Amino acid sequence: MNFASDNWAGAAPAVMSALTRHNSGYAPAYGTDQLTDSINQKFNDIFEREVAVFFVATGTAANALSLAAYSKPGGAIFCHRDSHINIDECNCPEFMTSGNKLVGIPGDEGKIAPETLNEAMSAFPDGVVHHGQVASVSISQASECGTVYSLDEIAAIKEIANSRSVPLHMDGARLANALVTLDCTPAEMTWKSGVDVLSFGATKNGCWCAEAAVFFDADAAMNFEYFRKRGGHLFSKSRFVAAQFDGYFENDNWLATARHANDAATRLAHGIRAAGGRTAWAVEANELFPILRRHQFDTLQSAGAKIYEWPAKDLSPEHAPAKDEVCFRMVTSFATQREDVEAFLNTLAGTL
Amino acid sequence: MNFASDNWAGAAPAVMSALTRHNSGYAPAYGTDQLTDSINQKFNDIFEREVAVFFVATGTAANALSLAAYSKPGGAIFCHRDSHINIDECNCPEFMTSGNKLVGIPGDEGKIAPETLNEAMSAFPDGVVHHGQVASVSISQASECGTVYSLDEIAAIKEIANSRSVPLHMDGARLANALVTLDCTPAEMTWKSGVDVLSFGATKNGCWCAEAAVFFDADAAMNFEYFRKRGGHLFSKSRFVAAQFDGYFENDNWLATARHANDAATRLAHGIRAAGGRTAWAVEANELFPILRRHQFDTLQSAGAKIYEWPAKDLSPEHAPAKDEVCFRMVTSFATQREDVEAFLNTLAGTL
Amino acid sequence: MNFASDNWAGAAPAVMSALTRHNSGYAPAYGTDQLTDSINQKFNDIFEREVAVFFVATGTAANALSLAAYSKPGGAIFCHRDSHINIDECNCPEFMTSGNKLVGIPGDEGKIAPETLNEAMSAFPDGVVHHGQVASVSISQASECGTVYSLDEIAAIKEIANSRSVPLHMDGARLANALVTLDCTPAEMTWKSGVDVLSFGATKNGCWCAEAAVFFDADAAMNFEYFRKRGGHLFSKSRFVAAQFDGYFENDNWLATARHANDAATRLAHGIRAAGGRTAWAVEANELFPILRRHQFDTLQSAGAKIYEWPAKDLSPEHAPAKDEVCFRMVTSFATQREDVEAFLNTLAGTL
Amino acid sequence: MNFASDNWAGAAPAVMSALTRHNSGYAPAYGTDQLTDSINQKFNDIFEREVAVFFVATGTAANALSLAAYSKPGGAIFCHRDSHINIDECNCPEFMTSGNKLVGIPGDEGKIAPETLNEAMSAFPDGVVHHGQVASVSISQASECGTVYSLDEIAAIKEIANSRSVPLHMDGARLANALVTLDCTPAEMTWKSGVDVLSFGATKNGCWCAEAAVFFDADAAMNFEYFRKRGGHLFSKSRFVAAQFDGYFENDNWLATARHANDAATRLAHGIRAAGGRTAWAVEANELFPILRRHQFDTLQSAGAKIYEWPAKDLSPEHAPAKDEVCFRMVTSFATQREDVEAFLNTLAGTL
Repeated sequence: MNFASDNWAGAAPAVMSALTRHNSGYAPAYGTDQLTDSINQKFNDIFEREVAVFFVATGTAANALSLAAYSKPGGAIFCHRDSHINIDECNCPEFMTSGNKLVGIPGDEGKIAPETLNEAMSAFPDGVVHHGQVASVSISQASECGTVYSLDEIAAIKEIANSRSVPLHMDGARLANALVTLDCTPAEMTWKSGVDVLSFGATKNGCWCAEAAVFFDADAAMNFEYFRKRGGHLFSKSRFVAAQFDGYFENDNWLATARHANDAATRLAHGIRAAGGRTAWAVEANELFPILRRHQFDTLQSAGAKIYEWPAKDLSPEHAPAKDEVCFRMVTSFATQREDVEAFLNTLAGTL
Repeated sequence: MNFASDNWAGAAPAVMSALTRHNSGYAPAYGTDQLTDSINQKFNDIFEREVAVFFVATGTAANALSLAAYSKPGGAIFCHRDSHINIDECNCPEFMTSGNKLVGIPGDEGKIAPETLNEAMSAFPDGVVHHGQVASVSISQASECGTVYSLDEIAAIKEIANSRSVPLHMDGARLANALVTLDCTPAEMTWKSGVDVLSFGATKNGCWCAEAAVFFDADAAMNFEYFRKRGGHLFSKSRFVAAQFDGYFENDNWLATARHANDAATRLAHGIRAAGGRTAWAVEANELFPILRRHQFDTLQSAGAKIYEWPAKDLSPEHAPAKDEVCFRMVTSFATQREDVEAFLNTLAGTL
Repeated sequence: MNFASDNWAGAAPAVMSALTRHNSGYAPAYGTDQLTDSINQKFNDIFEREVAVFFVATGTAANALSLAAYSKPGGAIFCHRDSHINIDECNCPEFMTSGNKLVGIPGDEGKIAPETLNEAMSAFPDGVVHHGQVASVSISQASECGTVYSLDEIAAIKEIANSRSVPLHMDGARLANALVTLDCTPAEMTWKSGVDVLSFGATKNGCWCAEAAVFFDADAAMNFEYFRKRGGHLFSKSRFVAAQFDGYFENDNWLATARHANDAATRLAHGIRAAGGRTAWAVEANELFPILRRHQFDTLQSAGAKIYEWPAKDLSPEHAPAKDEVCFRMVTSFATQREDVEAFLNTLAGTL
Repeated sequence: MNFASDNWAGAAPAVMSALTRHNSGYAPAYGTDQLTDSINQKFNDIFEREVAVFFVATGTAANALSLAAYSKPGGAIFCHRDSHINIDECNCPEFMTSGNKLVGIPGDEGKIAPETLNEAMSAFPDGVVHHGQVASVSISQASECGTVYSLDEIAAIKEIANSRSVPLHMDGARLANALVTLDCTPAEMTWKSGVDVLSFGATKNGCWCAEAAVFFDADAAMNFEYFRKRGGHLFSKSRFVAAQFDGYFENDNWLATARHANDAATRLAHGIRAAGGRTAWAVEANELFPILRRHQFDTLQSAGAKIYEWPAKDLSPEHAPAKDEVCFRMVTSFATQREDVEAFLNTLAGTL
């Protein structure tokens, strides 16, 4: 019953076998090999247009370096107050952008709303040097609350970004999970909705280490290889990332693993609600944040469920955990087993 | 006949199989898993003392972040003029140290001499704020010329560093190759000779992606995890690096692969000399820089040898390539095949 | 009726005449002259202990460089949400600290409360690398709302800072104004209450350009001259700052000018209240933020009063400006003339 | 007999009196005042075109921030090996450019030659990410050796910079001294010869603190006010700089003070040569580097001459100081008195 995190799993079988398969012979280093070429082409196919793809070591690096490509002196980056870039990246974005400021915006369900974004931006009027200048907007898809922006919501945010002529970055650490939920194309969820640069995460969804910054904006991409190398993120044996993507994409494995994870999350949510529990936020990807009685939580942990308490921020008083309640996080992945889901729900049923 | 670079190979069999072996079940992320614990212990064993080990994505990151741990405002880092950190890392060291200056020092055979180091440091007297302040010394073992510092040479450099109270960093991208050449212990070649922090490279010698900053100085290590994360270099599925090291170290595979590579380089050097050629510098690890007649070089390339011209810097006039000569680089690795070595030498013999 | 800002004035007569007086002969550059020595001693006298004084060009530089001296990778600096360092310095603190994050804390009257600070810090538990690490706490004395921390309030904040082993910085852009209000010694308001480093501002209170970082912590001061020079803030003809301080301090001019400014602010506040108006916050230094009817504000502006609307943030609904009311800022200085204060109040009286 | 440095003097009378003259009444802060407007217009007049002028606190800041405006990730800035930005600015350029590398180029007489520059740049071919990318070229006019680039020499350097599409920066700490030597217009010596951005120094030539970055390239200037503020270099009472420039420029005072200083240097050089001495480099501005017998140097110092030994770098063996000789630096300024020059030369005559 391991629901600790999607990065506690290893590599999905197709990814591991691709890595093994491509481990023979010589290949030019630093991303100049044929396999990387073919993966780049695969990205073009997936996004139905030419894109610029840069492998990096971590999602944090993909985010921070993407934002660096759009950084300005005194720049302000607008993001959700609880976003990964603001809370969980040890100032990597601030560092890589040479001191841009992350302006954390409140917002329900882990998402920022256009009007709140607009208001936050209004504190940075053009030409007032003291306050700095607007630099970019960043959203997480799926969000850190396990929710998903609709295409319209993304487009509405883009419209605000456009009103100040700044680009839109998408942190896609759980991109595939959002994609299968929206049941749209990768193009629709990204550049067609206004995304200029995407952190394309594959690690959580079945790779060992496969993250990429994907630019839909060729101009901004121009300098990016220098930002990447300056950050120490240009792999020498770069094909080991390309190989993982090869296994990840073949036969739409990535969508299958995401669907598998999402389904498990949905089943868990249904079961929890059926047992009288609730979740802090809508369950739209592979994360859920149940709110249960403490004795239920304790029983589940004792039974071996890897679950951890979570600060249920930004909930209205009537929705927040009551005194004897606990909010905790559960994350599913390609590796989540049906038996574990059932064991969890059975254990929960026993607490009623 | 691929002698292009040791990073054109994939992963050595033992490494690949360890990676596969450890790809099952769940493990805590971010380096808190048991496998990483056991690998950390393995590092302690190898170095015969407690060390602090931090995995990072690339050798460039290991170098730059190690130097960041010792950076100072206005700091000067002393290194060979042609060192990797000075020439090949796109200012990653300058960036990660928030603008420390790399002071490139000339030196024969890719190595810096104590007296030259001392003279370079004398341009930065203590307390003269205009010039900045001495921060650290960095050497490459093996050097970018394929040569190796003796233990005495390392200790002599350390003495100079000590005279200014700055630490000694070792770029060990080809550490194992130097180790088997010196036939000493890892402890002797590092902290016992005065090294404070080591970039422990394993990628070139048979891993996909396994680099670590190894601190012998517990105080300096204290903040390092924050430097690493700030640089986007904390892997989530960190065990994929640990797994590679597991295969790398087991049965002393790492020494075997290094020895294999060095032997190939030595055979090539002997063969080239037997054919009347010479090398720009001593061949002491897995790189050699032959100087041959241009028609010989052309013939070898035409025969399929992956070899590239190299600027033969810092050679005395009598030693430098003559007008009709070419200096080029050859790198061997665990993957270098005896047949390729022989084919190369046979082709060369045919040019006489 | 110029109440626009205390930096719209020039230099006070004593400062200007000192600058003229010291403009003769040669003096060593970069702060090694005798006049600077004597000013340093004067600072020692004022603070009743040895301090380390560093002149810099601006208050922003004093703040950012002071915080840089205490920066950490992934560091978090805690300050009021509306503080100058967070709002008005174009990310200079973030830049000089190589990407530290400013954690803006809400707080009434422009001041942070110990419990709120404590709570904000709790989001950065020791050893959780993802979140970064606590680095420092910064308060403004007087605050950006024109209020003043009591000695007890400063000590209470220091206690929280101490509980996490981080230093306390004081932005003293309007230090003298706070000092005369508290009627305490400079020592009491700073190091005796727990301040480790002070941005000593003199520009607003009657100098042309005289700002200093004053360290009560000799260890932290050690590297500071390198931070300053790295930031381009070491003046060559540094005595021009020392000369200003000479005039500033002689005969306690600095306290007299501050008292003059504070008195004017108090008279204005009394007059405004007498006329039925109110101020957004207590008037404890040389800034006031009246809330008046819009027609009153318009009349005053038309009459030539240099006053500007101000966002009255963080006010409770019952205290915030009503629909037909306006909050605006008024700043007094050594240059504020009694006639202007009276003219302002007379004009206001005419609006009743 | 004070020849220590041109920054040991105070402010020239015209500058001091202008500062006093403009010290009355209120003026908007941060460079939005009328006086600054009129000084900006004066700069336009001087350069015979629209320029963008930004006051900063120091020459180091002017240099580093100007280079920051043209910085690139992994950027290389080409300058003379002994230039101020490379030797005397405590890595301020490296810091402000977020880690650009200063590539120090050798060159006779403190100047870089086009062919040497071209060769240095060739180590940074376009598109080779490991080496970084060319960012800018910087020259000092007058140079740190007291020599002056001819217009043709500047244009020839610009041609090389153009061949790689990078801008040309001029460090004009002693701009006026060079100008009167060349007897050309400011326009000719700067943008007409290809300079894109100029550090306009006035401090050494008679101001207290008056330095500016002057952009001839409107596009690059766009972001500059954010770079300046991010560096803490936007003065609040900015008019105190404008006032100094007012006195500096009126009646061509700046050219007169420069001419005065240059003349003194020339007289000193002639006298020294007449006495059998020589100078390390041509004397073309207000610095000279005499080479005399040690006993002569000692006698002069004993007689009260403020002169200091200087490392005579880059001199050919036949030109370098002999064993019993000393090279030392002398700097003249607006404050240098004819009597001091004569006393110096008389003392020297006595040593023959």
